[in-house]
Amino acid sequence: MFAQASHPTLLIPGPIEFDDAVLTAMSHPSQSHVGAPFVQTFGETLTMLRKLFLTTDASAQPLVVSGSGTLGWDFVAANLIEPGEDALVLHTGYFADSFADALSTYGAVPTQLKAPIGARPTLEQIEAALNEKNYKIITITHTDTSTGVLSDIKAISELARRVSPDTLVVVDGVCSVGCEEIRFDDWCLDVVLTASQKAIGVPAGLCIMMMSGRAIETFEARKSKPGSYFASFANWLPIMRNYEAKKPSYFATPSPQLIHALHTSLTQITALPMEQRFKQHYEVSRYVKKSLEDMGLKQLASEEAAQANGMSAVYLPEGITAPELLPKLLAKGIIFAGGLHKEIATKYFRFGHMGVSVTNGDLGHIEKALSALKESLEACKK
Amino acid sequence: MFAQASHPTLLIPGPIEFDDAVLTAMSHPSQSHVGAPFVQTFGETLTMLRKLFLTTDASAQPLVVSGSGTLGWDFVAANLIEPGEDALVLHTGYFADSFADALSTYGAVPTQLKAPIGARPTLEQIEAALNEKNYKIITITHTDTSTGVLSDIKAISELARRVSPDTLVVVDGVCSVGCEEIRFDDWCLDVVLTASQKAIGVPAGLCIMMMSGRAIETFEARKSKPGSYFASFANWLPIMRNYEAKKPSYFATPSPQLIHALHTSLTQITALPMEQRFKQHYEVSRYVKKSLEDMGLKQLASEEAAQANGMSAVYLPEGITAPELLPKLLAKGIIFAGGLHKEIATKYFRFGHMGVSVTNGDLGHIEKALSALKESLEACKK
Repeated sequence: MFAQASHPTLLIPGPIEFDDAVLTAMSHPSQSHVGAPFVQTFGETLTMLRKLFLTTDASAQPLVVSGSGTLGWDFVAANLIEPGEDALVLHTGYFADSFADALSTYGAVPTQLKAPIGARPTLEQIEAALNEKNYKIITITHTDTSTGVLSDIKAISELARRVSPDTLVVVDGVCSVGCEEIRFDDWCLDVVLTASQKAIGVPAGLCIMMMSGRAIETFEARKSKPGSYFASFANWLPIMRNYEAKKPSYFATPSPQLIHALHTSLTQITALPMEQRFKQHYEVSRYVKKSLEDMGLKQLASEEAAQANGMSAVYLPEGITAPELLPKLLAKGIIFAGGLHKEIATKYFRFGHMGVSVTNGDLGHIEKALSALKESLEACKK
Repeated sequence: MFAQASHPTLLIPGPIEFDDAVLTAMSHPSQSHVGAPFVQTFGETLTMLRKLFLTTDASAQPLVVSGSGTLGWDFVAANLIEPGEDALVLHTGYFADSFADALSTYGAVPTQLKAPIGARPTLEQIEAALNEKNYKIITITHTDTSTGVLSDIKAISELARRVSPDTLVVVDGVCSVGCEEIRFDDWCLDVVLTASQKAIGVPAGLCIMMMSGRAIETFEARKSKPGSYFASFANWLPIMRNYEAKKPSYFATPSPQLIHALHTSLTQITALPMEQRFKQHYEVSRYVKKSLEDMGLKQLASEEAAQANGMSAVYLPEGITAPELLPKLLAKGIIFAGGLHKEIATKYFRFGHMGVSVTNGDLGHIEKALSALKESLEACKK
């Protein structure tokens, strides 16, 4: 197994720390993207994604394309909604603004339903909004990485199916897939998009998605062509179906090394029940948040049910700014992230707790981070 | 140094065989995409790309984004030409059709200038075409990977500047950057787009581009917004400028591991004069093509000057098909690619000779491949 060189422990809301076996897979010798060995690996990877998303519906379709989570917005905006059609964008932080920009780029008309920083739109507000217009899609940021606010995608999906049954339910799961409970089939989700470098535990470079059969039917019923070439379901769906059926296929060259790393991580993740993984992340998150509270620190996400389990976004004590705190933590070998929400960027910090840092307690990442934080805060006060 | 496991030698027109140091860099421990160490690495990588493309013009701009070479077409189509504007697409194989599709997706109007398989449009034909319409861009596939046809981008650029000076000269250099002579400044090129997994010698997963100041001015003078969100210069140019100035910046998460691998490969490549690299690829290519000729095999590219130096696309002898030949080669530890051009796909094969397989003769890849080919052809005849 590849021994990682000594390096500061990265506890930001992605990229996260990677397992040795996953990093070793990144160095896989070169392979043809259409040769039998790689086709087998990619096919198995797509099938394992079905387990990760808890779907057994054969009409659901996984997709993995070189890019980032952002590319997932283009896939949604260019394939599942047509120019002039309406999208309801639930806003719990920075990332809803960006998703709305992506939708506008391809001609869709986003309406944002905003909440104050740290809060989320209520189900009543969402119901009222859904009754106002004929929305083609509703988008939900599951965990908004800028605020640590967790959305209740189960309740929102149930609501949408009840009051606006034709609206596709689209989840931005960039910071949630692999650490938050997501039940693709049971919760009737239509799209969950994510990226490799967060709770899936693979270096950045992959856009990963799961689409429902209903989402694909919606795509197939488009009157206009997809608005993107690289992010076109027309170009990629046949490729994904072929790879999963172990048939070579070509649209654009995938990255064998990143796919091997994803295969390695998914093999580890799906070896245990997903419930266990959700529980581990929940318990560590509660422990972290309790410890932070004991240090007198307050979450941006005010309500407990709205607090993400893969990260914490935390207000700094009065008089201490993130640019003062973060270098002190780095000196102790811990990397946290600064604030991302423009209005309050220097007033808070973000602590990612996902993947091996949570599931492998022997690494000691969480305890080390909490101690370093406590000491650094005290040093800041002096 | 990471010891690559025993594996068949991959000699297709990309992905290619990778240097051990490059593969080791793929396993770099996790880093924040906005932390000082990674910002330094990414910044240096962008600066080294200027050397690779032989540009010292400060107004030129390198760009590296997670994706593939295909994403480069989206960047061109969504940023450098507007809906309704004309593009002249020079056709030397499969990839021109795809580039034309990408242009159409964003509303541009491609006109293809085609040549028979193995040939390329003549300068006279190109001049006549440029005189017919007011083309916003002319696109040239430098090496068409489906046919092994090399275009004379220097002569075409000179011609375009003379007869249609406002037309941007766009080169698809996916299979040429790092092995064919390209002089970005001297030849007045406006865009060269490529990918990581060919002659640059880095695993797949990166779209790499160089744009001229003139291309950027053309983008800035757009009347309409860019047609893509993920492939938008508006979103990425500020990020690339910041990274090169060693300032953290965020639009979408880059892949630190792939960027480290690119940094490693570019450090190796730019340590020697580019002239030497061009010469090595030229000489090995001439040797390969002479050896193939001695076996009675004919190149698809009929004219010597139109034969790529990073690969050979070769007709099989009458009565032998690629599906018969390739498994015999694999049994001898050599992977070539089958045909890609639909009309003649089973009648030819493709042999990539780029990167370490060319520059590091000690590996013995080329000799091993030629011997395996000779023996396999004889076995097919029995």
